[in-house]
Amino acid sequence: MSPGEQLLKTEKTRLHRKPERGAYDRETVNAILDEGLICHLAFLCHDQPYALPTIYGRSGDRLLVHGSRASRMLRVLSTGAKVCITVVFLDGLVLARSARMHSVNYRSVVILGAAKEITDDRDKTLALQCIVEHVMPGRWQEIRPPNKKELKETSILEVSIREGSAKIRSGPPLYSAEDSNLRVWSGEIPLKVLAQEPIPDPRGIAGIQVPGYLREYLVRRGP
Amino acid sequence: MSPGEQLLKTEKTRLHRKPERGAYDRETVNAILDEGLICHLAFLCHDQPYALPTIYGRSGDRLLVHGSRASRMLRVLSTGAKVCITVVFLDGLVLARSARMHSVNYRSVVILGAAKEITDDRDKTLALQCIVEHVMPGRWQEIRPPNKKELKETSILEVSIREGSAKIRSGPPLYSAEDSNLRVWSGEIPLKVLAQEPIPDPRGIAGIQVPGYLREYLVRRGP
Repeated sequence: MSPGEQLLKTEKTRLHRKPERGAYDRETVNAILDEGLICHLAFLCHDQPYALPTIYGRSGDRLLVHGSRASRMLRVLSTGAKVCITVVFLDGLVLARSARMHSVNYRSVVILGAAKEITDDRDKTLALQCIVEHVMPGRWQEIRPPNKKELKETSILEVSIREGSAKIRSGPPLYSAEDSNLRVWSGEIPLKVLAQEPIPDPRGIAGIQVPGYLREYLVRRGP
Repeated sequence: MSPGEQLLKTEKTRLHRKPERGAYDRETVNAILDEGLICHLAFLCHDQPYALPTIYGRSGDRLLVHGSRASRMLRVLSTGAKVCITVVFLDGLVLARSARMHSVNYRSVVILGAAKEITDDRDKTLALQCIVEHVMPGRWQEIRPPNKKELKETSILEVSIREGSAKIRSGPPLYSAEDSNLRVWSGEIPLKVLAQEPIPDPRGIAGIQVPGYLREYLVRRGP
């Protein structure tokens, strides 16, 4: 990534509404993508649009998603159909003194493109590593990697992070002069996704300590 | 809602993958919709599928979304175009001993249909009340309701909760006999969206206490 590199701003990705909230630089886009856990994939199947959630990973300027070879979504997308990938954080509720000025604080990224299937076993393994490490950094080194049969059952798609945009709102409610005398509490209620105490697998190996990377995760993402 | 009433199970909403995770009863679907804060709307615009997040409300068997009259999404959807509305909770990360058995716990609802615009001012106000009360119960009674001009600037759409399904995964990782001897920690990391300490509006009315419904919200949704 070159510093200050921008995503492609097209008629489709240009923000028509509230353009002041938009960003097209890779740094902003990647920061949101790297913090997110799930994305929504929009695609068309038999003339019906769908938005389905899934986890993902980012490798450079590629977004990676995976699923069962039997998944309808992945079958449709692997044909190179158009896709939209959306990641959003709801960062807070914005309570104003009038209904009209209520809002939410958020950070979102929308990427448009077409998916390409990854078919080589080594590349597939690397993509799965990327997805696992995206969700839980440090995990890959100690788990059993997928075998031939498991790789065969798994479809992996990549989408270039090329055409898209980020959109961000933060801060207090907008102010309407009309409401200046209303004696109503206004402000923000921040929202955070927080990891809770781990629940050990009842069929797991007894006596194993919570690993270091997971303890770090709980500090970073915990309450 | 009649007890045990089911959503329409069609070829489009029948779960092809992991049907044991599916549910079609309104009670399960409504419980997820009522707890959620944002949905993703999938729609097609000039042959490009989009998934865009927005807040919503539920009134009986209707989902309500709103936005600026200038919004491209609402303009497309108000023509009766097909839409998919998806609400998802990422309830936890599921860490297994092999890459293949990793998963996530989630609750999701997918509703398919076509949007219909609400045009009557009284109905629009009721819909906005529903959305505000969905996000922050108790708020509507003390804020200034939208005036004629604000209503005119706002588009509101409803989608029938008729064709769709819920999908839920919970619990520990699936067990693969192959991994029984791997000395790797396995289990769940629950995730929760939690409300943090409110940030008062710097331009708000001085000396106003946090209202009771917001204190209750912070107890219910707080850490």
